[in-house]
Amino acid sequence: MSRPVQDRQVESPALPPIARQRLVDFAAALLQAAGVSPTDSSDVARALVDADARGVGSHGVARLPVYLDRIAAGGTSATATAQVERAHGAVAVVDGNNALGLVVGRFGMRTALRLARQHGVGAVTCRRSGHFGAAAEFARMGPGQDCVAIAMTNVNVSMAPWGGITPLLGNNPVAIAAPTGGAPFVLDMALSTAARGKIRLAAARGEQIPPGWALTADGSPTLDPVAALAGLITPLGGPKGSGLAIAVDILCALLSGAATSPDVRPQSALAQAQDVGHFFLAVHVPAFLDLAAFRARIDAMLDRIRASERAAGVSEILAPGDLERRAEERADREGIRLQQSTWRALLAKAAELGVPAPTLP
Amino acid sequence: MSRPVQDRQVESPALPPIARQRLVDFAAALLQAAGVSPTDSSDVARALVDADARGVGSHGVARLPVYLDRIAAGGTSATATAQVERAHGAVAVVDGNNALGLVVGRFGMRTALRLARQHGVGAVTCRRSGHFGAAAEFARMGPGQDCVAIAMTNVNVSMAPWGGITPLLGNNPVAIAAPTGGAPFVLDMALSTAARGKIRLAAARGEQIPPGWALTADGSPTLDPVAALAGLITPLGGPKGSGLAIAVDILCALLSGAATSPDVRPQSALAQAQDVGHFFLAVHVPAFLDLAAFRARIDAMLDRIRASERAAGVSEILAPGDLERRAEERADREGIRLQQSTWRALLAKAAELGVPAPTLP
Repeated sequence: MSRPVQDRQVESPALPPIARQRLVDFAAALLQAAGVSPTDSSDVARALVDADARGVGSHGVARLPVYLDRIAAGGTSATATAQVERAHGAVAVVDGNNALGLVVGRFGMRTALRLARQHGVGAVTCRRSGHFGAAAEFARMGPGQDCVAIAMTNVNVSMAPWGGITPLLGNNPVAIAAPTGGAPFVLDMALSTAARGKIRLAAARGEQIPPGWALTADGSPTLDPVAALAGLITPLGGPKGSGLAIAVDILCALLSGAATSPDVRPQSALAQAQDVGHFFLAVHVPAFLDLAAFRARIDAMLDRIRASERAAGVSEILAPGDLERRAEERADREGIRLQQSTWRALLAKAAELGVPAPTLP
Repeated sequence: MSRPVQDRQVESPALPPIARQRLVDFAAALLQAAGVSPTDSSDVARALVDADARGVGSHGVARLPVYLDRIAAGGTSATATAQVERAHGAVAVVDGNNALGLVVGRFGMRTALRLARQHGVGAVTCRRSGHFGAAAEFARMGPGQDCVAIAMTNVNVSMAPWGGITPLLGNNPVAIAAPTGGAPFVLDMALSTAARGKIRLAAARGEQIPPGWALTADGSPTLDPVAALAGLITPLGGPKGSGLAIAVDILCALLSGAATSPDVRPQSALAQAQDVGHFFLAVHVPAFLDLAAFRARIDAMLDRIRASERAAGVSEILAPGDLERRAEERADREGIRLQQSTWRALLAKAAELGVPAPTLP
């Protein structure tokens, strides 16, 4: 639904496609060379390449160089493992021990899914984690285990609370996935009106941004992308998104002991632990009702939406996750087209770490 | 945060204030006269008057006449009680047996809170329920039991899925409440950009509505409130609110066995069961970490927001729930001022049911 526009789109045309598995292997080799265990390397690489395959390049292997830089600078631990610090009934608090956010996140959601299969629902919070990539990658772990799964994270600040101009809120993304009779329902959205990447794109193109996307630094609405980039992005729907961003921070940080958004350190502070917090919830459908009936009803619900009457100029109505699934099918057929700058950065990392890079066609 | 504007605001000035407890007693007497048990009558009356006291008159005693009409017409059962139909571990499915939505909702959240105190988290869905009033009234049951609580309901349709013009989505409200060191954090928001009540108000005043609030029946954006009322309200933030409304319907209807929004019967179909679905989640803070530390951190977080720098023209930055708490303090001091039309409708019901009505000053 909310697809961050990749900054690099303004730079240069994409490269020839690379096969998904080759890209996974390359990313995993880079992580292993940086000291990450083979299993974690493979899991993280697969999740990042999933995002690329699903058209969400902003959260794909383009993130890998900064993750590797953070490991090199000591801000993230290559070898740490996440662990359950406190467990009670159907809930757990995970100490991420400053491992990669994608490692901590997978551990957290796996724990929530295990609890849900046992108790019908599982709720897990994580502290001392890092940037975890696309929230959808964790929510998508649910449907294969017959669970509806919700993944949230706090992130460092980009928005002011409604009425304010001090950035105290992250655009804290929320993802939810549910099993269907076919490909799962997947919604993944940040709590800002629009992504900063889209504003950077407008700035590079010399275009205005739509009303409501951004504020100047003193809090006035602006259509000027340059003023917007020096200012603030707006919360989704004004006070509603502002309130939701606070609620997500409560669940992710206050229920885990992690830093709240204003105190989460940015990824760019390479040598510092970020102390990001996550919240994972899984509910096991068969604990509530018959799974086959659930699948039939969600299919009927989503098909009714897809087949409903379109507004003028709209060629198709999509259910959440449809676009990403199509992108993924194409990526599996044709390979993944990375941006030039992403590829150059990965090659530089490969040279640094002594990892052989694949050649592109 | 999202305060529906009460339609009656356009009609006439409000009445002299009535003391909160007198209004509760009157509302409870009406419900009892309609056959609702003394305990349920008192709980429902208190919840409705809470909404009035908190400034959310659209979900207060103004709803009582239609609830009573539905009981008289057989669409809602006065005497039914909700029951746990299926229980497993930390989850339960409740059959509302077509009782009043406020009765079913309280039973559902009470069950979720009981499960959370036992297992750390509790998730409860309800089917065969009705309109349950303000979602906040259920979420607010959490903080007193040291829980963060989330309440959601589906409602009948008012919005089209993003790109469409067929109303298939309700504006499905979501509320979340969390304990603090003082009055709880309370966020309650519908998933539409704005409430239809605000559009009706603009129509009555002959004013335009802001861009983005509504579409004409054929899906074109409109600033004309009359065309908007004949058309569609928009989901919060476009595709994001559209996806969230579907997600809430999945949790409320598909995990409970209730009707999905397009099949929920409107309250106005007085003789028909609505088959509304709800989803309640409670997490017990002490299962995760020290409650006193949680309270201290959320207080600090919200105070930092309240004290942050304001945009030009903004007199104050509020945390979710602040406005409603102030309204409630004033209502407790000065009484509740109902709209004329609400009071007239209650007096008519009192005459019908043979209930003595309080006199206003």
